[in-house]
Amino acid sequence: MKQIYFFSEGNKDMRDLLGGKGANLAEMTRLNLPVPTGFTITTEACHSYQQNSHQLSEALQLEIDHALDRLSSSTGKKFNDKFDPLLISVRSGAAISMPGMMDTILNIGLNDDSVIALAKNNDRFAYDSYRRLLAMFGNVVYGISEEIFDNVLSETKEINNYQSDLELTTADLKNIVTKFKQIYQDVAGKDFPQDPKKQLLSAVDSVFSSWDNNRARVYRRQNNIPETLGTAVNIQTMVFGNSGEDSGTGVAFTRNPATGTKNLFGEYLLNAQGEDVVSGVRTPESITTLQESMPEIYDQFAKIAEKLEAHYRDMQDLEFTIEHKKLYLLQARAGKRTPGAAVKIAVDLVNEGLIDKNTAIKRIDPESISVMLHSEFAQKALEQHILATGLPASPGAASGQVYFTAETAKNAHDKEHQKVILLRQDTSPEDIEGMVVSEAIVTSRGGMTSHAAVVARGMGSTGVVGAHALQVDYANKTATIEDCVINEGDWISVDGTSGHLYLGQLETTDAIINDDLATLLDWAKEISHMGVYTNADTPEDFKRALKFDADGIGLTRTEHMFFKPKRLLQMRRLILAKNAKGRIDPLEKILLLQENDFYELYKLSAGKSVTVRLLDPPLHEFLPHDDKEIELVAKEINTTKDALKARIDSLKELNPMLGHRGDRLAVTYPDIYQMQVTAIVNAVIRLNQEGFDIKPHIMIPLTNSKTEMKWVRDVVVETIDKILTNKNTTLEYKIGTMMEMPRACVTADKIAEVSDFFSFGTNDLTQLTFGYSRDDVGSFMPEYIAQKILPNDPFQSVDIEGVGELMRMAVNGGRNTNPELPIGVCGEVGGDPKSIQFFEKIGISYVSCSPFRIPVARIAAAQAALPNN
Amino acid sequence: MKQIYFFSEGNKDMRDLLGGKGANLAEMTRLNLPVPTGFTITTEACHSYQQNSHQLSEALQLEIDHALDRLSSSTGKKFNDKFDPLLISVRSGAAISMPGMMDTILNIGLNDDSVIALAKNNDRFAYDSYRRLLAMFGNVVYGISEEIFDNVLSETKEINNYQSDLELTTADLKNIVTKFKQIYQDVAGKDFPQDPKKQLLSAVDSVFSSWDNNRARVYRRQNNIPETLGTAVNIQTMVFGNSGEDSGTGVAFTRNPATGTKNLFGEYLLNAQGEDVVSGVRTPESITTLQESMPEIYDQFAKIAEKLEAHYRDMQDLEFTIEHKKLYLLQARAGKRTPGAAVKIAVDLVNEGLIDKNTAIKRIDPESISVMLHSEFAQKALEQHILATGLPASPGAASGQVYFTAETAKNAHDKEHQKVILLRQDTSPEDIEGMVVSEAIVTSRGGMTSHAAVVARGMGSTGVVGAHALQVDYANKTATIEDCVINEGDWISVDGTSGHLYLGQLETTDAIINDDLATLLDWAKEISHMGVYTNADTPEDFKRALKFDADGIGLTRTEHMFFKPKRLLQMRRLILAKNAKGRIDPLEKILLLQENDFYELYKLSAGKSVTVRLLDPPLHEFLPHDDKEIELVAKEINTTKDALKARIDSLKELNPMLGHRGDRLAVTYPDIYQMQVTAIVNAVIRLNQEGFDIKPHIMIPLTNSKTEMKWVRDVVVETIDKILTNKNTTLEYKIGTMMEMPRACVTADKIAEVSDFFSFGTNDLTQLTFGYSRDDVGSFMPEYIAQKILPNDPFQSVDIEGVGELMRMAVNGGRNTNPELPIGVCGEVGGDPKSIQFFEKIGISYVSCSPFRIPVARIAAAQAALPNN
Repeated sequence: MKQIYFFSEGNKDMRDLLGGKGANLAEMTRLNLPVPTGFTITTEACHSYQQNSHQLSEALQLEIDHALDRLSSSTGKKFNDKFDPLLISVRSGAAISMPGMMDTILNIGLNDDSVIALAKNNDRFAYDSYRRLLAMFGNVVYGISEEIFDNVLSETKEINNYQSDLELTTADLKNIVTKFKQIYQDVAGKDFPQDPKKQLLSAVDSVFSSWDNNRARVYRRQNNIPETLGTAVNIQTMVFGNSGEDSGTGVAFTRNPATGTKNLFGEYLLNAQGEDVVSGVRTPESITTLQESMPEIYDQFAKIAEKLEAHYRDMQDLEFTIEHKKLYLLQARAGKRTPGAAVKIAVDLVNEGLIDKNTAIKRIDPESISVMLHSEFAQKALEQHILATGLPASPGAASGQVYFTAETAKNAHDKEHQKVILLRQDTSPEDIEGMVVSEAIVTSRGGMTSHAAVVARGMGSTGVVGAHALQVDYANKTATIEDCVINEGDWISVDGTSGHLYLGQLETTDAIINDDLATLLDWAKEISHMGVYTNADTPEDFKRALKFDADGIGLTRTEHMFFKPKRLLQMRRLILAKNAKGRIDPLEKILLLQENDFYELYKLSAGKSVTVRLLDPPLHEFLPHDDKEIELVAKEINTTKDALKARIDSLKELNPMLGHRGDRLAVTYPDIYQMQVTAIVNAVIRLNQEGFDIKPHIMIPLTNSKTEMKWVRDVVVETIDKILTNKNTTLEYKIGTMMEMPRACVTADKIAEVSDFFSFGTNDLTQLTFGYSRDDVGSFMPEYIAQKILPNDPFQSVDIEGVGELMRMAVNGGRNTNPELPIGVCGEVGGDPKSIQFFEKIGISYVSCSPFRIPVARIAAAQAALPNN
Repeated sequence: MKQIYFFSEGNKDMRDLLGGKGANLAEMTRLNLPVPTGFTITTEACHSYQQNSHQLSEALQLEIDHALDRLSSSTGKKFNDKFDPLLISVRSGAAISMPGMMDTILNIGLNDDSVIALAKNNDRFAYDSYRRLLAMFGNVVYGISEEIFDNVLSETKEINNYQSDLELTTADLKNIVTKFKQIYQDVAGKDFPQDPKKQLLSAVDSVFSSWDNNRARVYRRQNNIPETLGTAVNIQTMVFGNSGEDSGTGVAFTRNPATGTKNLFGEYLLNAQGEDVVSGVRTPESITTLQESMPEIYDQFAKIAEKLEAHYRDMQDLEFTIEHKKLYLLQARAGKRTPGAAVKIAVDLVNEGLIDKNTAIKRIDPESISVMLHSEFAQKALEQHILATGLPASPGAASGQVYFTAETAKNAHDKEHQKVILLRQDTSPEDIEGMVVSEAIVTSRGGMTSHAAVVARGMGSTGVVGAHALQVDYANKTATIEDCVINEGDWISVDGTSGHLYLGQLETTDAIINDDLATLLDWAKEISHMGVYTNADTPEDFKRALKFDADGIGLTRTEHMFFKPKRLLQMRRLILAKNAKGRIDPLEKILLLQENDFYELYKLSAGKSVTVRLLDPPLHEFLPHDDKEIELVAKEINTTKDALKARIDSLKELNPMLGHRGDRLAVTYPDIYQMQVTAIVNAVIRLNQEGFDIKPHIMIPLTNSKTEMKWVRDVVVETIDKILTNKNTTLEYKIGTMMEMPRACVTADKIAEVSDFFSFGTNDLTQLTFGYSRDDVGSFMPEYIAQKILPNDPFQSVDIEGVGELMRMAVNGGRNTNPELPIGVCGEVGGDPKSIQFFEKIGISYVSCSPFRIPVARIAAAQAALPNN
């Protein structure tokens, strides 16, 4: 087994064997770029090392000897040479980069003898290199803390009042070398090995054994990286950026990693070795200044950068060193970039003909797109004291004055024109008007799919939920965190991307949807199989979603329409009526209002389908809860407070999520669904008479069986037929069902006999499959995730094994009955990229998500449609 | 196609073609019993009639003519004969008896002429027969209300001051006949058809068309009787029980249908036709008096009865007529009987060698057994005014004084030695001590599986729940039903079998488990594949269950053990502790108490397995709820009322059923499960040292995945290992999981890798599969059942299509991994016969139910194990 490849023997496709770094060094060598000679010990050698009780085999040692000989003959340098000693770097390099792995040791080959040889040309440089080797080797191989070495350096600088390492004299450095060697004795009880061969073998051993250290193991387990992969070791002739003022070292990106703009972007330091650039000890110069100081080198580098980018067809992150005005490339890899830059670069590369659209789509992390659509705090916010941290429920950044009730928040907003933040223990549908006017919503309870979180995301508002450290006291109108008391009207700032809360008003930056993103989304739409619809309850929601190019509305929740004050009163009269007769008047009043709601919504549809879900939540959500409000409502509806209280009490449920809601309301109060259907159909007929061609989709929530669906469907169809007969007109329409009860999934074949489409409600389905109330999981789910009992929050990314299996059964059952059945997902995970991958696999026709998630879902849907995913 | 069979041509196995009545008449004819000659028009003829636009075909009319000729030649009688006219009866008879079908017309063949011929021998009898025909025919064929004819009869009797029909003179009857014929004109606008042939055809037509009347259709739909079955028509020569004092008619059972005792039991009337016996106009005599009045007839009848019983191998319900001292049999069928009689008869028939044990088991309605195990109100209770009706949650009959809180009920019971009834809106675990001491539990809310219902059944207490008409006012300590106010301390009586509530104290009769039932249950145990275990939380429960021969305990709920006052305090200290350290002391205190609980329970086990489920309910169920109690508890645990309130508030959940409970508690507070496991193991080790050989079964509730089960199992195993090491002993034990989350069912193959047994919790599984909270279904489930959207309450009988499918998946998954995996059902439906049938089919190993359901489940399990079920 060949365990060593010279750079000239490999190429970029050999990542698995040579690691990422090794493959790229080989590729650059193959491209005849100036790469210092060297070789890579393979990942297979690492694997042998594991099996050989963590020992370097004799075969490998022999191969290393041969490689060193070859290196010597090609460079003319030898270990311990009195005139031109061979110095090398040793770096790890797995196929996938990984924190916790041993990284780099430079200057191997230096010892008390060879440092003298090196010093003949430049004594300061020689001792500078030696002290670097001593510190890195001591740290990596013997585990001596970096700090101990750093302290010696700092003391020396302090005593001499130096500002920079550059001021250290040769004498200082010699002294430091002596002290460092003493540290070996004092801390590790060992000498620094003078034999360069021994240095090298110890370094290789350290790289291989660092593969097995705890941090690397945990990282691999978390990221599903196989244990058997192993790391390679790269051994390369040293070039010295610290060999004088005609030398230097730097890093550069071929495009701006923050903006994506096409120009070289980077930094360098003269007379320095690699670690100096990142350590911050000295302030590096911008790469543009190199154009002036060393114009030839700059031009050469710029050409190489362009060549590498074209070769790799991606923006590159390059490391280079200049040794006596000669340029060397030490690393090339795809550069990390911000979401915005990623989009611009992907689109530019397509336009430049370097990649195709599919590749552009594949390169984008869909989740990162959402960051582009929300404002964020300016950089300095990050320096503020974090008041508390909750779950980052809805991205964005906002500041405002705190109010603890929807009513006071709305008042402050409407009458005082304040920017307000609603801060509550939790929210419920009756808080909706306060939520709408708030810059941000903060709760001390609840999870990522609590009411507050869902509503915030739906509205695109900033949201932080479950900030448990907050003690919200409604009575005193305060929220307390340790010693800090927030009073009504105090300013706070909320970062929905990180979950952090800050005191006071922080500066924000606005982000916009740029042309590049629009282009990318168009491509994604072409590629996708699945449609991307929006959840939208209002014309405003729909308009926002249309800007993001939604394919239509997958879910309109009609209940939010009832929370406007005038309607709420009628809704309450409706609920509190003693019988069907008492419901007639309020129903008629609501009908007119709802008809207009639907008219406005459908008017925007422009050929796109709009699916309206009939009333879903338990009726008591519409009723007043506190004494004062009950008294008020009692007056409004001409009853006594006690009578109203008793009625409210009788409607209360122990587990409202599992109670009298959804189409169960249709069975007990068919007149409510009849009213809603009438409102939809009246609105559509009006529009169609105005020249539209709308075919409404009506969706029934909470269906459990074919019998139930048939019963409710009959009510809907009879209502529509009656209207059409009366108005002497016709209408095409579809009646489908939510799939959100496990029983519906199990009996989907039968339900499909009476449903024109399915739409998974993954929130309810997940709640029921796990027996988790999404409002109550906050008390145990964090521990479940910490203990790895759950890989993630199943309300955020679909649980493929359990919920997904029920979905797969439902899709198969439904399509067995009707192969053309449209099947959507309108639950929370409809906008989650990982979930979307799974949905493509089981044959989902479309997803529906909140407007701000549409771009994310669109990219994810396109990625899911592409092969090798 | 032959559409008519003479009785002599058929037999008892031709039910489908001849109907039940026709087949039995044929069988008795075949047995040479004195059956009046006649023939049966087949169910196929009925089918032709439907297809022939509800017309009697010419072919059938021709066949009827031939049959009438044959009847005439065998009886020597002819229609319209001046001396001996042929009179016949026409009766319907489907294979399955069915309400709403036209029943009987007697005396067909009488008209203004033949009545004179008949009158030659006995004129009163002739006109009595004629007026009967007129009334029956008018009612059945022309739809004239019975009442109109009855009124004429009543008026005549009133005018003449007659007490009995027998006092009607010939003149009266002639007068009545005239009036009846006038009614035909007045009401139907038609004459009574004088042509006997026309009478007959109209009667046959009426029978056939009654197959299609609304009531019969609905009944067939409800009972899944195929529409195509059709009814037969039986035409039989009349014999006259009303032809004088040497004639009569009666019904008799071959054994006592109330007790099962083996002796003739029945009633008869001299000089009467069939309907007189049932109508109550005259009071019939006991059949025993026939032994004195007509000893030869009695003997002949007794011999026939014995012969028929032996022939049919079952207790018979016979109809007979005596005409001039000659006995005729008109009907024989299996007799209806009380549950107690059914058991006695089944056991006696086996002992008499008439049937085998399997047949005996098959003949018992398992559900009816439960009636035998509970007391009931004496007959006169049924005459009382029913105050209100709720759901019959737990059978039995009890009277007591009403209390509205557990505390006052317990006080009245303990201190005043009162018989108490706890009447509440609903109950929760903290009411348990009040429930234990109550004769009956009544709630105004909740369904058949609400807390109150489950606990009542578990304790074998009488229970009525969801009596919505009751307005329970805790503040005023009253319950109001319309105008009636029940105050604290008032007596009421509760019938848990019917769901009725009565004012005052009613007399009850006690029922006992007799030897016959014991014998039958022994046989059932031999036959069954499935074991029948009990749900038992206390030694008292277990003792009761052992009396019913439970195979062991399938479910011990440990939470009820915590509601005793001293423990509740420790439990509250435990829950309110701020961290694990604060939980140490209360846990240690509870440990000692729990250890003793388990010691007492296991001590009773005598080789039978006992499965203990670890803590299941949400912790806040253990916390105080009303202000007064909170203040009290705050003092007890040395905190302030406000602090306690805040803590209770923070533990509250929106949907506790889907919240922080079950093994989720183990993940967040492992010390609680560790304490419980320690208590179990300590108790078992003590007992084993005393000579027992107990292998405890520990059950984990709410498991969702293999990862979760493995995590909790590890906690349990580590705890046990530690104890065993400390005590230097060994122990065999099993750790299994509840299967109650849909996700667990879907991933059962994986969960089985780390579970020693499965036990379905069908209550939770049904809740989650349907999305129904069993505490909240009361507001819509009745409507679902009324509308036939649900065939029945799925909490009472397993929903085979949905929940059953998930169970089947789980069984298959589990057994795929471990073919020997024991799988039980410990939910509410574990005692439901229909569900048990299904459980046998999918391979369930055992069911577990409340002690009083054990005999029911045992019979059902045996029936399920028998073929052809």
